[in-house]
Amino acid sequence: MKKIMNDPRKIVDEMLDGLAYCHSDIVERLEGFDSIVRTAPKTGKVALISGGGSGHEPAHAGFVGQGMLSAAVCGAVFTSPTPDQILEAIKAADEGAGVFMVIKNYSGDIMNFEMAQELAEMEGIQVDSIVVDDDIAVEDSLYTQGKRGVAGTILVHKILGHAADTGKTLAEIKDLAVNLVPNIKTIGLALSGATVPEVGKPGFVLEDDQMEFGVGIHGEPGYRRESMKPSKDLAQELVGKLLASFDRKEGDKFGLLINGLGATPLMEQYVFANDVAHLLAAENIVVDYKKVGNYMTAIDMQGLSLTLIKLEDAAWLEALNAPSNTITRF
Amino acid sequence: MKKIMNDPRKIVDEMLDGLAYCHSDIVERLEGFDSIVRTAPKTGKVALISGGGSGHEPAHAGFVGQGMLSAAVCGAVFTSPTPDQILEAIKAADEGAGVFMVIKNYSGDIMNFEMAQELAEMEGIQVDSIVVDDDIAVEDSLYTQGKRGVAGTILVHKILGHAADTGKTLAEIKDLAVNLVPNIKTIGLALSGATVPEVGKPGFVLEDDQMEFGVGIHGEPGYRRESMKPSKDLAQELVGKLLASFDRKEGDKFGLLINGLGATPLMEQYVFANDVAHLLAAENIVVDYKKVGNYMTAIDMQGLSLTLIKLEDAAWLEALNAPSNTITRF
Repeated sequence: MKKIMNDPRKIVDEMLDGLAYCHSDIVERLEGFDSIVRTAPKTGKVALISGGGSGHEPAHAGFVGQGMLSAAVCGAVFTSPTPDQILEAIKAADEGAGVFMVIKNYSGDIMNFEMAQELAEMEGIQVDSIVVDDDIAVEDSLYTQGKRGVAGTILVHKILGHAADTGKTLAEIKDLAVNLVPNIKTIGLALSGATVPEVGKPGFVLEDDQMEFGVGIHGEPGYRRESMKPSKDLAQELVGKLLASFDRKEGDKFGLLINGLGATPLMEQYVFANDVAHLLAAENIVVDYKKVGNYMTAIDMQGLSLTLIKLEDAAWLEALNAPSNTITRF
Repeated sequence: MKKIMNDPRKIVDEMLDGLAYCHSDIVERLEGFDSIVRTAPKTGKVALISGGGSGHEPAHAGFVGQGMLSAAVCGAVFTSPTPDQILEAIKAADEGAGVFMVIKNYSGDIMNFEMAQELAEMEGIQVDSIVVDDDIAVEDSLYTQGKRGVAGTILVHKILGHAADTGKTLAEIKDLAVNLVPNIKTIGLALSGATVPEVGKPGFVLEDDQMEFGVGIHGEPGYRRESMKPSKDLAQELVGKLLASFDRKEGDKFGLLINGLGATPLMEQYVFANDVAHLLAAENIVVDYKKVGNYMTAIDMQGLSLTLIKLEDAAWLEALNAPSNTITRF
């Protein structure tokens, strides 16, 4: 393992200090905690928070800022943040209109975010939440009951973030989230494992000519390992699985997100995007929104994921296209 | 080599089609050429173009859009675009007020951009240019006389792009460029080589415990290879070399750009940023602008570069902070 770091046990701490230093116009570190909060003055709106284990940068701290998250709670690498840490972020983010939590579907995250919610409610803060489970690759996984939460979570941040920013109530945001999440589906593939800094070696190893479909963002097993294929065959597999997972009818509008997992260059992501474009066009699918880049990574994993969102409500597209002022523009 | 691609000989073509598909609100592909141009209506301003070999994505196509480039000319991977290709981009980008070219200092690029300039002038288009040579690591290199042009080029795009956008003349932009470029200095380090898709193996190999200072963005040799060090020691080396390369006086203001080379996660870039912050603070250096991310990559190279810009003119900082509407926000 070669990584640009100092003590691996301090990597999250030093990363957050570096991030707060570089983006002090937008965010600051919550003193004494591994959380990033907005510096913008509070205006009495619903606060949106998210988080989870670190190692998925720019998720989630990169999406703190006006129009997206109010705070991001950052656990150790691939490890859930603690309830007291989440509680402090809730208290720091609250503007008096309640706090909405976007939780990726991992057992540890759900347990700790829910415990924090109870603690916050005991202190008189209204809290509600949604669990994102967009990864259609497998049911149940190493750290998950049901489906995992992955890159589609960023679309949830943006759409709910816009709702919060435009003054929607906690109940309205909950309704929106409940309608939205089932319309977001993701599937990924990996060409390599990810190396957790404190572990020092990859979580799994693929041979020089191997790739694996359906790997999770913590290296959870996928559903099939096979020899490396051309991009258009990879795209065929992912697009096929995704389209089969939606109820579709004539005239449906979609958005897509191609997400690099950390070590896959943009060049390859755009080649893949071109293949996806041809496959969707062949199915006469209207794609009204497209995003490509490293948004929900798996440390230094080579690979990518494809997310489709069925744009059931025109307001969702408007929210996705709304300006935001976050570290990583989305 | 495992890459998400089809035929490596078509990788640039397919990448550009994918990029144009995903960002059709901002750019389009120049028909019949490997160039990306703005879709915005022309308003009679100076057009700014840049380009070079592909493999540095998002540079340069990612910086096409309002406030930065008018067009990006994309050569084969690590290969200069051809004069006729550059000429067509000049003609497509020209709005009647002349075209300014930002050229990275590589012999092939300079020859071909200058030839295109002559051809364009014969067709009655006013053209001027600047050569960016910000890499202080080595004098003369595999493809360069003098110093190489690397990540600092993006700062040039932004500052000149803002000047063009606000209606400056070709002569004014040339003056600005001549003053600006000597105040931008970069130095990098690599933990691995980059694999050109058509070659299929890394341009150079570093052992499991080795890194190299001063490697170029095409894998050109650096100035010292040694065993891997903690981030703070790497930062010390790069900051030390950079600061020594500037004439400095009390009250100077600086900006910094930490640029990932493709396969180095943001987590590591922010840890490094934190170390840089401490070193600059210890020298009482005022840093008024900070940017971190993958902007000028070297395909799938692991490593990063650090750029410092001495902000001699307050207008440069204003330009760096100005809004832009490019694929990759900068």
